[in-house]
Amino acid sequence: MEKLNQLKNILQEVHDIQMAQNLLEWDQSTNMPVGGALDRSYQMGTLAKISHEKFTSDEVGSLLDSAAKEVSSLNSDSDEPCLVKVAKKHYDRERKVPTQWIEKFVQVTATAQTVWEKAKADSDFALFEPHLTEIVNLRKEYGTYFKPYDHVYDPLLDDFEPGLKTAEVQEIFNAIRPRQVALIDAIKKAKPVQDDFLYLNYAKDGQWQFGMNVIAKLGFNFERGRQDVSVHPFTTSFGWGDIRITTRIDENYLPTALFGSIHETGHAMYEQNIAQSLRRTLLCDGASMAIHESQSRLWENLVGRSYNFWSHFYPDLVKIFPSQLGNVDLDTFYRGINYVKPGMIRVEADEATYNLHIMLRMEIEIALLEGAIEVKDLPQIWNEKMQSYLGITPANDAEGVLQDVHWSGGMLGYFPTYALGNIVSAQIWDKVAEENPNLQDQIANGNFKPLLKWLSENVYQHGSKFEPKDIIKKVTGNTIQADPYMRYLEDKYKGIYNL
Amino acid sequence: MEKLNQLKNILQEVHDIQMAQNLLEWDQSTNMPVGGALDRSYQMGTLAKISHEKFTSDEVGSLLDSAAKEVSSLNSDSDEPCLVKVAKKHYDRERKVPTQWIEKFVQVTATAQTVWEKAKADSDFALFEPHLTEIVNLRKEYGTYFKPYDHVYDPLLDDFEPGLKTAEVQEIFNAIRPRQVALIDAIKKAKPVQDDFLYLNYAKDGQWQFGMNVIAKLGFNFERGRQDVSVHPFTTSFGWGDIRITTRIDENYLPTALFGSIHETGHAMYEQNIAQSLRRTLLCDGASMAIHESQSRLWENLVGRSYNFWSHFYPDLVKIFPSQLGNVDLDTFYRGINYVKPGMIRVEADEATYNLHIMLRMEIEIALLEGAIEVKDLPQIWNEKMQSYLGITPANDAEGVLQDVHWSGGMLGYFPTYALGNIVSAQIWDKVAEENPNLQDQIANGNFKPLLKWLSENVYQHGSKFEPKDIIKKVTGNTIQADPYMRYLEDKYKGIYNL
Repeated sequence: MEKLNQLKNILQEVHDIQMAQNLLEWDQSTNMPVGGALDRSYQMGTLAKISHEKFTSDEVGSLLDSAAKEVSSLNSDSDEPCLVKVAKKHYDRERKVPTQWIEKFVQVTATAQTVWEKAKADSDFALFEPHLTEIVNLRKEYGTYFKPYDHVYDPLLDDFEPGLKTAEVQEIFNAIRPRQVALIDAIKKAKPVQDDFLYLNYAKDGQWQFGMNVIAKLGFNFERGRQDVSVHPFTTSFGWGDIRITTRIDENYLPTALFGSIHETGHAMYEQNIAQSLRRTLLCDGASMAIHESQSRLWENLVGRSYNFWSHFYPDLVKIFPSQLGNVDLDTFYRGINYVKPGMIRVEADEATYNLHIMLRMEIEIALLEGAIEVKDLPQIWNEKMQSYLGITPANDAEGVLQDVHWSGGMLGYFPTYALGNIVSAQIWDKVAEENPNLQDQIANGNFKPLLKWLSENVYQHGSKFEPKDIIKKVTGNTIQADPYMRYLEDKYKGIYNL
Repeated sequence: MEKLNQLKNILQEVHDIQMAQNLLEWDQSTNMPVGGALDRSYQMGTLAKISHEKFTSDEVGSLLDSAAKEVSSLNSDSDEPCLVKVAKKHYDRERKVPTQWIEKFVQVTATAQTVWEKAKADSDFALFEPHLTEIVNLRKEYGTYFKPYDHVYDPLLDDFEPGLKTAEVQEIFNAIRPRQVALIDAIKKAKPVQDDFLYLNYAKDGQWQFGMNVIAKLGFNFERGRQDVSVHPFTTSFGWGDIRITTRIDENYLPTALFGSIHETGHAMYEQNIAQSLRRTLLCDGASMAIHESQSRLWENLVGRSYNFWSHFYPDLVKIFPSQLGNVDLDTFYRGINYVKPGMIRVEADEATYNLHIMLRMEIEIALLEGAIEVKDLPQIWNEKMQSYLGITPANDAEGVLQDVHWSGGMLGYFPTYALGNIVSAQIWDKVAEENPNLQDQIANGNFKPLLKWLSENVYQHGSKFEPKDIIKKVTGNTIQADPYMRYLEDKYKGIYNL
């Protein structure tokens, strides 16, 4: 295993550098004074360059081939063959893209992000348009390095969701679209639930204290992680032993911090429960964005927005905020945090409307790459789709086509993973519930250990050893299916809105 | 200037990596959960290896020679010739030491530090002895790579204090030793001042708030820095735009946090006021450990422990801690924070005794390197010197020879810079006072801007462009002189103790 060991040494160094990059980014979002921005951008650029050069060297290519032979006699599901296989896939992808393209992409997106910020602030799409056009052209070019493909969108999707095809996503989305639209229509006709108490003033300290208690009970391991505050919540890893999350606190809207913390805790517990044997390797990561999101959404929604969860935690919350919640009973609180209302902003969307925001974006991305639409027409297309799916029209581009950061960063192909995460979360949930009939009782008793144990054994421990579809197959025996998620939504809102 | 530009590009990348290393260390001391230690050590090792390899390459050697020719027509005090000259000095030093020695040193000191922690906890010098013997032998070997030298201690000293010779330090120390001993003897015979009020309970929040206010008024720039809490206070840099300090708070001893913060602020303001033209170069650093320490001590002691400083700040402190200090008048407070008492522990030593702790250590280091004494005899030698200089004898090795971390880390040659910092601080202070007759009035009015401006123009802006002795010459017109510091001490304590 001489070549394998040589390969592992290099991959370990690449991993170390990437973990240091994560720390540079985390610190930038949590602690860095404004004056540190320029130096920090140099540092991130230099580390990115070094890790890329180290990983894409000819030496790594030849070691990957030799190591593949050395591990060929081992069980293909064991750590080392998986490491070689996944590293080879990353290597091939990074080698296929010319350095000139990467340099151009970094430069174009750096400018585009600054312009987008201004365009969003001024609600001025025309300002952003030429930059987005350049990004779309670069992404079209990116696709050509991965020919042949079934669909021009496939290589982009594959960056975030290894092995998944555009046609598969479209089939899934086509299955859920009419059911989500019908559900929203039914809710619109029903009597609204009360949610005014969520908008009272909730002091930061109390919110922080309650959230820390909740995520500790869920199973966040504070010996190998911590929570901090940042403008946009995120999860990051500095290695197997240090997985961190951030949250943000809105003193005038209770759900922001709490569900943000639970969401990120879902991501973090995934990474905290990867097998220790994968430490310091590129397999010490989630299997894909969708699988990762399935776990953040599972803990946030299927656990955190459930009646049984609150039957356990609500008394504690009332104790911290007696003047705000003393007169709100559990049932009213539960309905309130599950209020459905079609809105303009994706990140504020409820469970019933969220996926429609995603479908709209994916349809636009695909049409742009196919050349079926032009960037200049996006505001109009966006607004028409919003009206068609959600029955509302943005008042301006800031709350419409300009709302998300992703396109300015060149991240086309990313959005679908959010909706797929929702869909997969319900499939996995059904399986847990099937194998553990006491699940709901355990949640009502504040006992999350059996759930975390099951998820760790069946999903988390594997890290990114397997492709997402293999993980889903292992866990559910099936491909990605839309029905469990739609049944979950329909059942839940039937109860809440008396549909 | 083609070669110079190529050189600068590489040096910038090396600098970026070193700044990332600093962040890894800072985070380890301020935020990292216990579980992150192993991954962090890998990351620090990998970045150290990469920056060392990048900097000591043959390519850098040849670029240094070519760049030296390219800049030879420029003013030798301008940025670029200084960069080439200082980089060349670092390069030669790093190249002279064989990689095998470095690897051995890293390995031996890593083990020694763990053993030292246990030896200190158990007060068991015998446990540490073989490791320290190995370290002394490695340091002897290290010296041989720098032959010829005047003294075997010179190469070690030069790592921390470029250009300074052992004989020069010995001469300075010989000049101050009898005067410090005589001063302490006189104080011992005087009536002790009151300091019991310093040991009352002072709540953390109030200490933090007061300290933040003080360092902001001194001139710490919070747009390019921040303060956090750690076990051992330190200053670090993540580039010109982000200089951070830490402090620790002892709720039962008021001076710890406050003077710790002021001390680190002195270090930080030095680095925050380096000329921006030196950003992202190895010149964006202090000139040496002693010059750096001269600034932390200047702000901590000559400013922060002065009567005029407290005539400005004391009313604010009493407002925060009325029950503890309401009955303590300014004069009593001033004498209390300047209490002198020979003690075992260097880091807790007052101004009158501090340098004697340093001399003892330097004498031992030199004798070890000369082979005049053996490691096994250190406890006895240590205790004899403590008795001779300070009139006290440690009860055990934990509060004697085992107290400091430096030797277990292989840092022989470092200690003298602490005392030199004290000495230089008074020389620079005399010069400021001479050129600015209103200095004491300004301090009494809480106006530190003229002092900071003077120090920035005369010392800080130059970063590490010049050798320490050149800086001292430029500022004071002289070499390092002991007399100003001794006069400062003698005058100060004459007042406090009515000598």
